[in-house]
Amino acid sequence: MKKGLLIVFSGPSGVGKGTVRKQLFKNESLNLAYSISMTTRLPRKGEVDKQDYFFVTKEEFEEALKKDELLEHAQFIGNYYGTPKFYVEKLREEGKNVFLEIEVEGAKQVLDYYKDDPGVLSMFLVPPSLRDLENRIRGRRSEEESVIRQRLNKAKREMDLKKNYQFIILNDNVNRASEEISRIIELKLVAYHKEQELKK
Amino acid sequence: MKKGLLIVFSGPSGVGKGTVRKQLFKNESLNLAYSISMTTRLPRKGEVDKQDYFFVTKEEFEEALKKDELLEHAQFIGNYYGTPKFYVEKLREEGKNVFLEIEVEGAKQVLDYYKDDPGVLSMFLVPPSLRDLENRIRGRRSEEESVIRQRLNKAKREMDLKKNYQFIILNDNVNRASEEISRIIELKLVAYHKEQELKK
Repeated sequence: MKKGLLIVFSGPSGVGKGTVRKQLFKNESLNLAYSISMTTRLPRKGEVDKQDYFFVTKEEFEEALKKDELLEHAQFIGNYYGTPKFYVEKLREEGKNVFLEIEVEGAKQVLDYYKDDPGVLSMFLVPPSLRDLENRIRGRRSEEESVIRQRLNKAKREMDLKKNYQFIILNDNVNRASEEISRIIELKLVAYHKEQELKK
Repeated sequence: MKKGLLIVFSGPSGVGKGTVRKQLFKNESLNLAYSISMTTRLPRKGEVDKQDYFFVTKEEFEEALKKDELLEHAQFIGNYYGTPKFYVEKLREEGKNVFLEIEVEGAKQVLDYYKDDPGVLSMFLVPPSLRDLENRIRGRRSEEESVIRQRLNKAKREMDLKKNYQFIILNDNVNRASEEISRIIELKLVAYHKEQELKK
């Protein structure tokens, strides 16, 4: 079994990461899989442990942190969220390409953690223009101007981090961007598998 | 000897293709080579046949056209210019990756000609914004507003053709863009060579 990639997919808030991700998952030949996050928050109705999240106690989460078992983590409204390494690696060992759609702060932690792994592919999705991003952020819902300004400023700060990624993908069109990303994943996979063969 | 790629590198007027190309040619491990154009214009002082251009007569050029020996061609101030296939293929057979920096019309012809060749890599360089492109075009030299307008409109029309390329590269920074392009060339080369091996 050839080991899969870890694909770190990021970009500013509002750029359309989710739409592109959905398009990519339709392409079964890419062999993509979601990683599952670990969290200390309680399961909501219908949520299943080890499927939606790994639900753990605060003590278990802090133990995982201490043992360096999380690729990244953050706190949100008093709860911890993180990406456990063992599950990402399990999927990769099964030949899956693990797709991590993640905001820039989490991405930075993951890329630091994995900086010497040749099987990591990092991509940053950018809007055709800041004006376009503003339209997207404004279009989402009717909010106060000050809130929209805040979101836009956050997105601009996030955009400054694009240089940390191997590939910058222009989201001019969902289908085109998804095709380009698929092309990069396929090429990277061939190169990664070849590298693994040579190591044997 | 493993066959090299044909790299078609294009983008709107003024985006900075030449600067990126120079940066790429500094990286010797990419094994890049220029193709040589064929032209009916007379050699200028210091120009050497088969080095700067293949200098030919109008009859020879038209004969080459008739025999479908040119990947693309255009007329400029009464002279023909074109890219002879034999030279591109000779370099590729020698293991070189042939780098064709070319405007969008010529690129379209080349990509049509080579549409079934798995060794073709097409990339389109885009500016961070149209405003940025305008600044670049204005900065080049002091020209009349109407001329600048014309150039800018041409560049915008050229931008519309970006969807015809396999990869769109954001020229936010020459070094970063060149690194991303190098990465794509390296991945593509591994995949292309693997494909050739499997065919044997």
